[in-house]
Amino acid sequence: MTPAERLRRYAELAVRVGANVQPGQDVVVTCLVEHADVAREVARESYRAGAQHVVVLYNDLHLRKAAVELGPESEIGWSAPYLLDWIKRWSTENPALIALTGNPSPTLMSDLDPALVGRSDPRDIRAAFLENIQGRHVNWTIVAAPNVGWATEVFGEPDMERLWEAVGVSTRLGEKDPVAAWREHNEMLQARAETLNELAFDAIRYRGPGTNLTVGLISGSKWRCATFETAAGIPHVPNLPTEEVFTSPDWRRAEGHVRSTYPLVAAGTKVTGLEFRLEGGKIVEVDAEIGAEIIREQLATDEQAPYLGELALVDGSSPVKQTGLVFSDTLFDENATCHIAFGAGFPEALGREVPADELLDAGINMSAIHTDFMVGGEDVDVDGLGSDGTATPIIRGDVWQL
Amino acid sequence: MTPAERLRRYAELAVRVGANVQPGQDVVVTCLVEHADVAREVARESYRAGAQHVVVLYNDLHLRKAAVELGPESEIGWSAPYLLDWIKRWSTENPALIALTGNPSPTLMSDLDPALVGRSDPRDIRAAFLENIQGRHVNWTIVAAPNVGWATEVFGEPDMERLWEAVGVSTRLGEKDPVAAWREHNEMLQARAETLNELAFDAIRYRGPGTNLTVGLISGSKWRCATFETAAGIPHVPNLPTEEVFTSPDWRRAEGHVRSTYPLVAAGTKVTGLEFRLEGGKIVEVDAEIGAEIIREQLATDEQAPYLGELALVDGSSPVKQTGLVFSDTLFDENATCHIAFGAGFPEALGREVPADELLDAGINMSAIHTDFMVGGEDVDVDGLGSDGTATPIIRGDVWQL
Repeated sequence: MTPAERLRRYAELAVRVGANVQPGQDVVVTCLVEHADVAREVARESYRAGAQHVVVLYNDLHLRKAAVELGPESEIGWSAPYLLDWIKRWSTENPALIALTGNPSPTLMSDLDPALVGRSDPRDIRAAFLENIQGRHVNWTIVAAPNVGWATEVFGEPDMERLWEAVGVSTRLGEKDPVAAWREHNEMLQARAETLNELAFDAIRYRGPGTNLTVGLISGSKWRCATFETAAGIPHVPNLPTEEVFTSPDWRRAEGHVRSTYPLVAAGTKVTGLEFRLEGGKIVEVDAEIGAEIIREQLATDEQAPYLGELALVDGSSPVKQTGLVFSDTLFDENATCHIAFGAGFPEALGREVPADELLDAGINMSAIHTDFMVGGEDVDVDGLGSDGTATPIIRGDVWQL
Repeated sequence: MTPAERLRRYAELAVRVGANVQPGQDVVVTCLVEHADVAREVARESYRAGAQHVVVLYNDLHLRKAAVELGPESEIGWSAPYLLDWIKRWSTENPALIALTGNPSPTLMSDLDPALVGRSDPRDIRAAFLENIQGRHVNWTIVAAPNVGWATEVFGEPDMERLWEAVGVSTRLGEKDPVAAWREHNEMLQARAETLNELAFDAIRYRGPGTNLTVGLISGSKWRCATFETAAGIPHVPNLPTEEVFTSPDWRRAEGHVRSTYPLVAAGTKVTGLEFRLEGGKIVEVDAEIGAEIIREQLATDEQAPYLGELALVDGSSPVKQTGLVFSDTLFDENATCHIAFGAGFPEALGREVPADELLDAGINMSAIHTDFMVGGEDVDVDGLGSDGTATPIIRGDVWQL
């Protein structure tokens, strides 16, 4: 496979499997300037799939850094109204949304005041994105765009070819028919989700070094995987790769402490050694070797930010895990191992239609933020707890037990 | 001067001399993804100058190519409404505008159907830009961002250092105090403009190989140079470099034929050997070795597009000319030699306030397009004609005569 063929196949995966762009639909690609080569191929493939218009919103982390460092402090976290208004209109315009990830400069902000950096995300725009996703207004996907900075972060040298290979393995790009391979993989994940749904656990317990956390589930809620569907019925795969079965827990029920097992890149800072203590569902203590203040700022986003929105289970059979790499990119690292998110949950986890203003009461967390952190690995046992307290092993030594 | 110092000085020139960004003002930078390093430094310098917000609108010619090649034909030239609406609001928001030029792929579109390519510019957005400029709503400047593709176009190899040197010479960046050097240069251009205004020619005549063109001026109109002023009174320098004295001719008065002396990059095509014949002010014949159809499409933009909007006089003392280079970039090539534009004129040339709906009657052309083409050089004589037909030499052998 030539690099050009690989790029084309990768864009096909993003457009046809990931976002599942429909004929006549508009496509929005959000990415960084460093992602231009993938963005261009995604645009081309979107037109081939029948897109009406493709708009690429190029962002640039260096501009955010300039604003934090040299701009007026009162404006940090500002959302450009022209963009915000449009993103809000997606609830009726219903474009397909393809977000590219792969941070070219994961530690760009680390020399700046973390309290300012933590506020630098354009909050209103982030909230508008989440509303479109929670409202199932857009068929969306997140895929990575290999770039020199990211390769350097992963390998210590700008080895783009090696990064492309790792991304290729992780996304099953080398399979003879990647689209068919994804269908088959989806069935395996679906089987896992169905087993979990039959077992109908009351809670999930994580135990390992620095971790002893029990998170309560919503009665009747469902484990989901791979494929979402928009309100209008367009199926799509929000993450490529995706190796997880996940649900939204009851935001009111989490007790214990948890230590993250991977670094986490947030707001231009690589957060390491992250630890939380939770009480009554709420994160009440945050500690980290580097970057605790970034996370504290995120948790201060709104009242519900310090509550959990997602539990996701991934075992060591994940091809992402099998690369043996730490990608320092949430899309990849979260598909290498179990993870948890604080912030917004997924209404789909309820398995029934619930009006937006009743979701909180139903147990689904609502917030303008959603941050995943990794908690799995060889040393972390994951159990399902029945309402009588009996424990059923789900993962042991990174191997799926059910 | 290290490359970092050079970049910083260049950004200072763009922000402090070019756009003249005011404290508390918003700044919009329009550029291509290939211009990111200059855009970032311009953003930093804008914040240092007191900007409130800096928004960089990254564009990408490869996306336009994808739309022409693979998108629906009916949508070619589409303007994204979210962007168009905002640009229209600039008439009251009055941001500073910094446009970066320097085409990284001047012949990107040359393998596509020229009729489609000629329509691919987002017409409504271009018109909205011109309205902001003609209405003097924004303090604006155009500066170049050296990039690998442009260097390859100019030198046949990606010699970025040599391109930066040529750009540095052209923009007086090597002067001890570039801002003072620009002030002095401005005074020289101002003296030329005043001489022309005192002579109050009735017409300008160009004669050279393939050229014999006489263009009528508006009675009482003014020659201008370098510095513009917004309606609110912010002085700014729209082009860096700027070596021209210019005016808007009477769009109803042009007779003869003219051969362009430089290539012209338009819509991703390098137009060469361009020739026009004009009658009663109107371009009635177009010929070219390459790209005539691109120009014909531009001339079909609207009813007034085939009439002239600008005459600009530049002699061989221009440091841009003295580099000896063809930049294949209008900002540079038009400041190396005399040029003419078809399409929109400048109301400022009237030297008095005239309501927008009376400009056409006053002789100022109004159009959604403004395309400069180069007509000067050693072999082209430029004369001022009095109303009695007497000719006064202005330029001979590329040397200013007045």
